[in-house]
Amino acid sequence: MINVVLLGYGNVGRHLYTIMEATETVQVLQVYNRNYIDGLATPQTQSVSNLLAADVYIIAIPDDAIESFSEALPLQGSLVVHTSGGVGITALSANNRRGIFYPLQTFSKNTKVDFSVVPVCIEAENPTDEALLKKLGHGISQTVVNLSSEEREKLHVAAVFVNNFTNHLYQIAEVLTTENGIDFKLLHPLIAETARKMEHSNPSEVQTGPAKRNDIKTIEKHLKLLEGSQFQPLYKALTHSIQHGKKL
Amino acid sequence: MINVVLLGYGNVGRHLYTIMEATETVQVLQVYNRNYIDGLATPQTQSVSNLLAADVYIIAIPDDAIESFSEALPLQGSLVVHTSGGVGITALSANNRRGIFYPLQTFSKNTKVDFSVVPVCIEAENPTDEALLKKLGHGISQTVVNLSSEEREKLHVAAVFVNNFTNHLYQIAEVLTTENGIDFKLLHPLIAETARKMEHSNPSEVQTGPAKRNDIKTIEKHLKLLEGSQFQPLYKALTHSIQHGKKL
Repeated sequence: MINVVLLGYGNVGRHLYTIMEATETVQVLQVYNRNYIDGLATPQTQSVSNLLAADVYIIAIPDDAIESFSEALPLQGSLVVHTSGGVGITALSANNRRGIFYPLQTFSKNTKVDFSVVPVCIEAENPTDEALLKKLGHGISQTVVNLSSEEREKLHVAAVFVNNFTNHLYQIAEVLTTENGIDFKLLHPLIAETARKMEHSNPSEVQTGPAKRNDIKTIEKHLKLLEGSQFQPLYKALTHSIQHGKKL
Repeated sequence: MINVVLLGYGNVGRHLYTIMEATETVQVLQVYNRNYIDGLATPQTQSVSNLLAADVYIIAIPDDAIESFSEALPLQGSLVVHTSGGVGITALSANNRRGIFYPLQTFSKNTKVDFSVVPVCIEAENPTDEALLKKLGHGISQTVVNLSSEEREKLHVAAVFVNNFTNHLYQIAEVLTTENGIDFKLLHPLIAETARKMEHSNPSEVQTGPAKRNDIKTIEKHLKLLEGSQFQPLYKALTHSIQHGKKL
C-alpha cells in the first residue's frame, strides 16, 4: 500500500484523487486544499502545518505556485512530487526528496478520464523513489515512463501543439462556421476522424489539403475568404509551415 | 432506387462506391476511371463516351480537374454533381443540371469510414434535383444539409483548420518528440481526448495552456526550447492568436 497526501484539489488533483481512491494499492490519507472541499470522504486540511505522515506528497496546484508552495511545506526528507509537465524538478524545495508524477492528459471538471491509457511521466532523484513512483503510476495506468525534466519539457511543448493549439484551431473553425450561419457540429466527425487516424498512421503519411498539394488556386481563394479576418495570418503561417517545413 | 454512375475511383470515389453498393436504395450502374480497376464487381469504363444513362453522375476527381472534365462529358441535361468542398457549383458545365454531393470527411485508402455519421452537404439548381440528392444522401448518412456554394466554401476553410492544419500540428509534435528520443505515442491519448471533448464542449470553454492563462514564463521557456527551430514562428503565431483573437 502506498500512502499519499494530495496537495491541491483543482482539475488534476480531483482526477488523481478519484482514480487513486479506486486503486487498491494506493491510499489517499489526506487532501490539502486552500478551501474546504464539500462531501469529501477522506480527511482534509486547509493548513499545511497539519499534514499527516505519508510515503509521497503530490503537489497538484498551478505551475507558477509550485516553487513557493513547496518551499513553505513543513516537511523534511519526505518524497514530494509535482504533477506539472512544464516545471522542472528543481522548482521543488531541496528540503525534501524530489520527484515528478505527471499524467499526460487534459482534464476537465465534468469529464471522466480513463486513466488506464493516460501515460504517467515520472522522475526521481534516487532509485528507491523512482521505484515507488513507478509502482504508484502502474497502480493507475498501463503506461509509466521515466523522463528527465529536460525531456518532459520538450514533451510538454509538443503537448501544447496537440492540445492547446489544436483546440484553438477548433475554436477558429467554430467562429468561421457560426458567423456564417453554419452548424459547427458538422465538423465533429471530421475532428474525430483526424484524431483517430493517429492510432494507425503517422501524421506525415496522412497530411492532405491545399497547402500539401500546393494548390495555389484554393489557397488564394481561402485567403480571399479570410480577408480582414484575424485568422488570415494564421492560415498563411500554417500553410507556409506545411509547404516549407524542412523536416516534414 | 437511385441509379448512379460514379466518375472517378480515388479515395472519395472508392469510399462512396463501397457505401453505395451497401445501400439498398442506391444502385451504382457503372464506374468510370482513367485506369482499369481490378476486381470491381460493377461494370466499368475508361472512356466517358461509353457512359450509361443514370439518375445522377457523381464526379469524384481532384478539384483542379473538375471543370475541364465536366466540360468534356458527352451528357446533356443530366444531373451531374461533384464531391468537392472547395469548388463552386459553377465549375460544372452548364450543359447539365448541376449539383453538389460533398461528404465532409477525410478519407484514407485503407480505413473504413462510418458513413452514417458523415455529414453530406448538397446543393442543386432546382427542387427536384435537390430532393433526389437529399434522398441519395439519406441513403448513406444520418446528416444531410443543404448549403450554397458560398457557405460550403466557408465550411471548407474551417475544415482545413480542423483537419489539414490540425494534422500538421500533430506532425510538429511528432518531430519534437522523436528528435528528442521521446515516443510520439505518448501523445496519442491527449490527441484523442482533445478531439473527444468537442462532443460535449465548445472549444472556447476548454481552451487551456500557457497562452490562454498568459503564463509568460512558460511561453518564454518554450520559445527558448524552440530557438532555431522552424516551429518557433508558428508557436508565436498561435500563441498570439490565442491571446489577441478579438472574437475568441
